[in-house]
Amino acid sequence: MEATSCPPTTWEATSTMSDTEREVRAGAERARDAAADLAPLSRAVKDEALLAMAEALVSEAESIVAANAEDVERARAGGESEAMVDRLALTAERVGAVADAVRDVAELPDPVGEVVRGASLPNGLELRQVRVPLGVIGIIYEGRPNVTADAAALCLKSGNAALLRGSSSAYSSNSRIVEVLRGALQKTGLPADAVQLVPGTGRDSAQALMRARGLVDVLIPRGGGSLIRTVVTESTVPVIETGEGNCHVYVDASADTEMALAVAVNSKTQRLSTCNTAETLLVHTAVADRFLPRVLAALRDLGVTVHGDDRVRGYDDEAVPASEADWAAEYLSADLAVKVVDSLDDALAHIRRYSTGHTEAIVTDSQSAARRFVSLVDAAAVMVNASTRFTDGGQFGFGAEIGISTQKLHARGPMGLPEMTSTKYVVTGEGHLR
Amino acid sequence: MEATSCPPTTWEATSTMSDTEREVRAGAERARDAAADLAPLSRAVKDEALLAMAEALVSEAESIVAANAEDVERARAGGESEAMVDRLALTAERVGAVADAVRDVAELPDPVGEVVRGASLPNGLELRQVRVPLGVIGIIYEGRPNVTADAAALCLKSGNAALLRGSSSAYSSNSRIVEVLRGALQKTGLPADAVQLVPGTGRDSAQALMRARGLVDVLIPRGGGSLIRTVVTESTVPVIETGEGNCHVYVDASADTEMALAVAVNSKTQRLSTCNTAETLLVHTAVADRFLPRVLAALRDLGVTVHGDDRVRGYDDEAVPASEADWAAEYLSADLAVKVVDSLDDALAHIRRYSTGHTEAIVTDSQSAARRFVSLVDAAAVMVNASTRFTDGGQFGFGAEIGISTQKLHARGPMGLPEMTSTKYVVTGEGHLR
Repeated sequence: MEATSCPPTTWEATSTMSDTEREVRAGAERARDAAADLAPLSRAVKDEALLAMAEALVSEAESIVAANAEDVERARAGGESEAMVDRLALTAERVGAVADAVRDVAELPDPVGEVVRGASLPNGLELRQVRVPLGVIGIIYEGRPNVTADAAALCLKSGNAALLRGSSSAYSSNSRIVEVLRGALQKTGLPADAVQLVPGTGRDSAQALMRARGLVDVLIPRGGGSLIRTVVTESTVPVIETGEGNCHVYVDASADTEMALAVAVNSKTQRLSTCNTAETLLVHTAVADRFLPRVLAALRDLGVTVHGDDRVRGYDDEAVPASEADWAAEYLSADLAVKVVDSLDDALAHIRRYSTGHTEAIVTDSQSAARRFVSLVDAAAVMVNASTRFTDGGQFGFGAEIGISTQKLHARGPMGLPEMTSTKYVVTGEGHLR
Repeated sequence: MEATSCPPTTWEATSTMSDTEREVRAGAERARDAAADLAPLSRAVKDEALLAMAEALVSEAESIVAANAEDVERARAGGESEAMVDRLALTAERVGAVADAVRDVAELPDPVGEVVRGASLPNGLELRQVRVPLGVIGIIYEGRPNVTADAAALCLKSGNAALLRGSSSAYSSNSRIVEVLRGALQKTGLPADAVQLVPGTGRDSAQALMRARGLVDVLIPRGGGSLIRTVVTESTVPVIETGEGNCHVYVDASADTEMALAVAVNSKTQRLSTCNTAETLLVHTAVADRFLPRVLAALRDLGVTVHGDDRVRGYDDEAVPASEADWAAEYLSADLAVKVVDSLDDALAHIRRYSTGHTEAIVTDSQSAARRFVSLVDAAAVMVNASTRFTDGGQFGFGAEIGISTQKLHARGPMGLPEMTSTKYVVTGEGHLR
């Protein structure tokens, strides 16, 4: 392995640290100081700041849209598609919607201070496990500039300082939005450094953030597979992997085929490129004759290209022959891999092999099949007779979501405000000794 | 940075993989298969296996003690102190105690299957967040061979497969213990690979374990600071940092000095070298005259060397002058750093600077001081009028403890069975679509 591809595992301030690294670390230190001030704040104070942030976004909409226009112009000049440009673009109305989302966060319960468990111990000690902020949360994200304000709001509400590293394509928009948010914070007497944009648009600034172990408590990457993989493997700061979703829908022998048709189609096509979009459909051979022709026709009508095994192609010779790569693929497009399986256990074996641990669904009317599927599938979310598209913080009633974790430690599945906290034990005695 | 000190960030099976690495990875794959079988097991089945394991330890005590004798002989021949040899040594009685501890685990509630939260969503979907095993837990530990059976029992109870990498000094003991445990598992119809000893005693086998990302779900290191640091920085497998404890006791202006005396002395001397042992005593100037002479005398009588700042040395000129290194030191010996502070805020600033996030205690009768201390101290455990020595799973009523985490993600403080689990969401509908 070449030395140049090797991330430092322990950070040492050396004279070889670049200016960018120095800058990023200095920002992380300021974030850490700000976090110490945020930790003990009451919900009332944080909500007041959130409302001020929302107001500021609205009153500064013009300057935000103007900054955004720079990003849009740059994207067009760079030959980006209109679809990409539209994802990037902000209007006064869109800014208003971002502000509303920030106001919504003020309506949510404050996770900080929640007593997770408590007891009076045999010796009379009082034990409480309480939620506390994580401290400094780094968010590395691609795409849309509205993530900037969303993430800042969620971090603040959960008492955390935010270090935001957005995409270079939205740099001007993100910079202006963060400026506006910081101004609002200062007005309400909170430290402006509770929200910072990581300076720089090059790889080195993202890397510096990833190496700020000890200054940054956790990194949450939001974006495509390549970004996630880079952050997960290179970061020395703890990461919450918001991974890919190679989601499966399994139609069991005992499935209601009308229900299965609707669930399969909805799971794939309601949104084609989200992490909870279904990418593979497994069909029990016992329902294949009744079900496959119908679902294949429905998918075709909706413009979905089916990648099928030989048995599926027996029902639809227009289906593209599926290879190993198809079973593993998270298409994020109008494509679906379809396979016939001989049993629930075969479906489970297939899922076990190809699952990315996001969402796996079964359609069945068999109590025992549902129970077995739920018990044996190892994923963030298991659906029984429901679309895979429900794996979402909003849908789960969390009110907000910073991302969907596919890892097992700390948080798994949609992450709301409680997932952005840690806990500490508070033990109170009267001079108790061991 | 030299390439040789660089851990691979993505594992690729290459022809350059050593035999050790291949062996360790193969074991991890077997562990992963075993974990799939353990996940759905009922508590009854797991408890039966635990009792069989305990019985087997007792009936095989002789062979375990014989294997241990090899380790003891090797340690003596290597010039180890009698204290070290004693830590290593197993007798039939000690094996009996280990077996009892395994039986105790069978008495604990099963964390798997606990419904952490649940709700009926507005659209009628039923949402449940349930505890599930993490999967494959790797434990890298130094020292005593009884950790082997303890760790195996806790892993099994929480539905996890265990990959144990003990110290080379206890290799023969650990090998025999694991053999016995595996035999018991097989007898009860469980996969023997639910408990494995990682082969090899060299650094390369530990490193191979640390790099088995994707096969091992989490690594828990148990041992000294050097081991923890190595694992934390080099591992690509998620780690739970069971870190150092530079624990502070702060005696506030409003402290009951009798209570403070007892708490300070107990926190330092009840056990001198545990992670929850106090290593620094901070004394508010307002109680210094009344308190310091007494606590310094008590510490001296107990053979503790005091490392004090100039003000402390004003009360005891035998105190060693304290330097920066003393405030940061986790002595794990009969040494204590002592400092006079001018205010609660100064104490908080000092703790903020030197805390390792383990346990911090305040002795005070001021409600407001206690509240402020609890609110502002960022550590796994905060004590009010109680010894730092209470940070312990047994003391907290958990019944068992795999280690004490000083990190913020996933688990913080003493880790019991629930901390050895993850969760998944189970969503049940009737054909619900988004």
